[in-house]
Amino acid sequence: MTDPTQAPAAERVAEALPVTGTDQVSEYVHQHADAFLTDLVEWLRIPSVGADPERADDVRRSAEWLVGRLRAVGFPTVEVWETAGHPAVFAEWPAADAGARTVVVYGHHDVQPVDPLELWETAPFEPLRRGDELVARGAVDDKGQVLFHLLGLQAHLAAGGRTAPAVHLKVLVEGEEESGSPHFPALLHERRDQLRCDAVVVSDTGVFNRDTPSICTGMRGLTDAQINLRGPSGDLHSGSFGGAVPNPLHALAALLAGLHDEAGRVTLPGFYDNVVPLSDRERELFARLPFDEQAWMSGPARSLGLAGEAGFSTLERIWARPTAEVNGMWGGYTGPGQKTIIPSSAHAKVSFRLVAGQQPEQVQSALSAYVAGGVPAGIRAEVEFDGPGVRPCLTPLDAPALGAVVRAMERAFGTEVLFTREGGSGPEADLAEILGAPVLFLGVGLPDDRIHAPNERVVVPMLLTGARAAAYLWDELAALPRT
Amino acid sequence: MTDPTQAPAAERVAEALPVTGTDQVSEYVHQHADAFLTDLVEWLRIPSVGADPERADDVRRSAEWLVGRLRAVGFPTVEVWETAGHPAVFAEWPAADAGARTVVVYGHHDVQPVDPLELWETAPFEPLRRGDELVARGAVDDKGQVLFHLLGLQAHLAAGGRTAPAVHLKVLVEGEEESGSPHFPALLHERRDQLRCDAVVVSDTGVFNRDTPSICTGMRGLTDAQINLRGPSGDLHSGSFGGAVPNPLHALAALLAGLHDEAGRVTLPGFYDNVVPLSDRERELFARLPFDEQAWMSGPARSLGLAGEAGFSTLERIWARPTAEVNGMWGGYTGPGQKTIIPSSAHAKVSFRLVAGQQPEQVQSALSAYVAGGVPAGIRAEVEFDGPGVRPCLTPLDAPALGAVVRAMERAFGTEVLFTREGGSGPEADLAEILGAPVLFLGVGLPDDRIHAPNERVVVPMLLTGARAAAYLWDELAALPRT
Repeated sequence: MTDPTQAPAAERVAEALPVTGTDQVSEYVHQHADAFLTDLVEWLRIPSVGADPERADDVRRSAEWLVGRLRAVGFPTVEVWETAGHPAVFAEWPAADAGARTVVVYGHHDVQPVDPLELWETAPFEPLRRGDELVARGAVDDKGQVLFHLLGLQAHLAAGGRTAPAVHLKVLVEGEEESGSPHFPALLHERRDQLRCDAVVVSDTGVFNRDTPSICTGMRGLTDAQINLRGPSGDLHSGSFGGAVPNPLHALAALLAGLHDEAGRVTLPGFYDNVVPLSDRERELFARLPFDEQAWMSGPARSLGLAGEAGFSTLERIWARPTAEVNGMWGGYTGPGQKTIIPSSAHAKVSFRLVAGQQPEQVQSALSAYVAGGVPAGIRAEVEFDGPGVRPCLTPLDAPALGAVVRAMERAFGTEVLFTREGGSGPEADLAEILGAPVLFLGVGLPDDRIHAPNERVVVPMLLTGARAAAYLWDELAALPRT
Repeated sequence: MTDPTQAPAAERVAEALPVTGTDQVSEYVHQHADAFLTDLVEWLRIPSVGADPERADDVRRSAEWLVGRLRAVGFPTVEVWETAGHPAVFAEWPAADAGARTVVVYGHHDVQPVDPLELWETAPFEPLRRGDELVARGAVDDKGQVLFHLLGLQAHLAAGGRTAPAVHLKVLVEGEEESGSPHFPALLHERRDQLRCDAVVVSDTGVFNRDTPSICTGMRGLTDAQINLRGPSGDLHSGSFGGAVPNPLHALAALLAGLHDEAGRVTLPGFYDNVVPLSDRERELFARLPFDEQAWMSGPARSLGLAGEAGFSTLERIWARPTAEVNGMWGGYTGPGQKTIIPSSAHAKVSFRLVAGQQPEQVQSALSAYVAGGVPAGIRAEVEFDGPGVRPCLTPLDAPALGAVVRAMERAFGTEVLFTREGGSGPEADLAEILGAPVLFLGVGLPDDRIHAPNERVVVPMLLTGARAAAYLWDELAALPRT
């Protein structure tokens, strides 16, 4: 089928690409950009919406499509790994040098749901080429970023005249990331031997903006809890009882209000004890990012104001400082009009974002103690945790492997690379924790790529730059002195 | 129809009645107890559930039944007063002495719904006689207490050999009390001239317990509000934004926690400024009531503890001190599991019980100012009030008309009468406010009469004692010196 909107002109892609060198890697990527995009469009046409049970077959088709591509590129081992949910894909290509470092490249082939469909300018699974952008669900999150690794590997092999990569390469592409990776930790435990590695390269993030290449060095951890307070065994009439019986909503308000002090710091005892502080160098590098706080506030944050821990900038607050947020709260009468009751119970959902040095289980203990000690006589309190939580992860700025990513990125982008972190939490912490290896982020998404939203897009030259960075990375990692 | 359970034996009623005198009033009441109960059973068979639209005809039948009884007793003027809802009944019987005091007797002929029906031991509108009790919806709230006034008036006339009562008597029995009297203030305004009076006698309450006759001297007022806080214009991901954007749930928790100080006092500026303090005498009289705090806590309050304003007893707290209660609170994610958001809004319903000296509008202003001044930058606040509120009412212990009620009650019960108040709020404040007359409470309900609950009952001897008290009251009021 010939469709001009889906047959990108390699010339135009090459023109739009920021050329920073005329080396063999760059030439290979330029020459194969057309084929790369044809492949990506084919993959994007498979609606692998993991959260939709009716798309289960499509998620499997997506995995099988990737198996085919990995085999075509030359991976000697390519496997579909079954889980209790959607399948993951694993591939392995040992280096010629048996002593080479081993690297796991992580990505995912499932995509977000497409609702609201009516806001899309094209069918989400009929990719639309517009200038140097490709609009489709999954274009950047994460199919485009998985696929640039294949182009990068081919460029790496061709440029070096190699028959095997400079590192022992393993690829793990899961199928449930957009559903919260429910079976991923189990898979990592089960396949731990096959996944043994010296580093994990995660390609599911982005750069600060198009002109400011950057590398994410960490993600926050997370622990969630629900607080349940129970007072009288039934709702009471506030006329007959008001003023003499403890009200669980009052107790809940006091507990939640007491979670922060006047400086915006979390009051749980010991909360900050082991927090790895921001170094002066990282704060200075954060400050050099062209962050427009006002635009961020009125744009993505849709807020009329900013607030947070005293003594820290907005970027430091969202990336590198731990937080407590009340995510939901309910109790008593919430319908129209009024019902003057003292309710029998009150509830809140709270979550804590954690940074390096903090352990979810320690925060859980501190919260339980805080709630137990903070309710008045006559109120029974219970704290339920939604699992063991997610650990934070952080790669120190002076880590040698991070230096290799910096050099690879700087060669690809032709300019200085800065550092960011992610405020969210993801399976990356499981990778670091279970595989016992540092996580390196090599991502080329942009903040305005509309991930999880209608009209998700990827900027094609960013993918080609990502492919070049990946090609350089294997050389850079191989060149590191063994410790 | 002859049904032994519904044909009470006058002898047994007379036996059960605490006889405190052999005066003519008592004799009349004894002799007519049987007929009184027959009438009451007939009225109770009319299911005048005002809140049920399908019972509208029954509420009207109930009004018409009462019209017939008032005419039979001899009231020269008896009218059905239409409202925008259910009809009220009005009757008037001038005293022989044109200069006599005028009294309005207030009650209601609508009854509470009967759900849950399966918990009733008899059909709610098929009255069941058991010992000295009569079980039926409306038995004590309020048909029994309206009807004892008719028996009392007949006894008053017969004992005094009168053709007209000693006071100019007006009777007003509304049909929407159990629905919150939505059209009652309008009716009072509209009929103000016809309702002109020197005092209002409310018979819709009770005594402390069977052995402790008491008179209620006041009810708390009420004002309700909903607080709405709005932060970001949509829910935000707490990973990407947590720690840097003001969270409306945090702001709400702080506002609500700040409504009370450590001593349990309400912190709104000026809240206590005009509160009429409890006199030493009233505190002393409250303390003489046989109140079992532990039994109250574990019984009706169903609570594991007590709490409230420091320096006041439980009875003082619920009857005579103003309060702030959070009745409902909601915002953010409240479903199963977790959703780590900063929600865009947070809401609470709060209500204040007010005591004599406080004005609802002043409390409303203070709350609005407190909320407006208590939210951080980036949070917009709104306070909505559910109407103008209800004023408190209080009859001073030294009011001459109250002295007349005390003497009438003491003659009927043959023992000292103590004082209570009601913590709730009702149309009584409208009566006092709109008619400009003191409200006197003459009620003979018992705390365990199960009003608003399945198996509502009335203790028949209490009704007969109420009839005697009413009979004496007209003489006592007539005997008061004119001021």
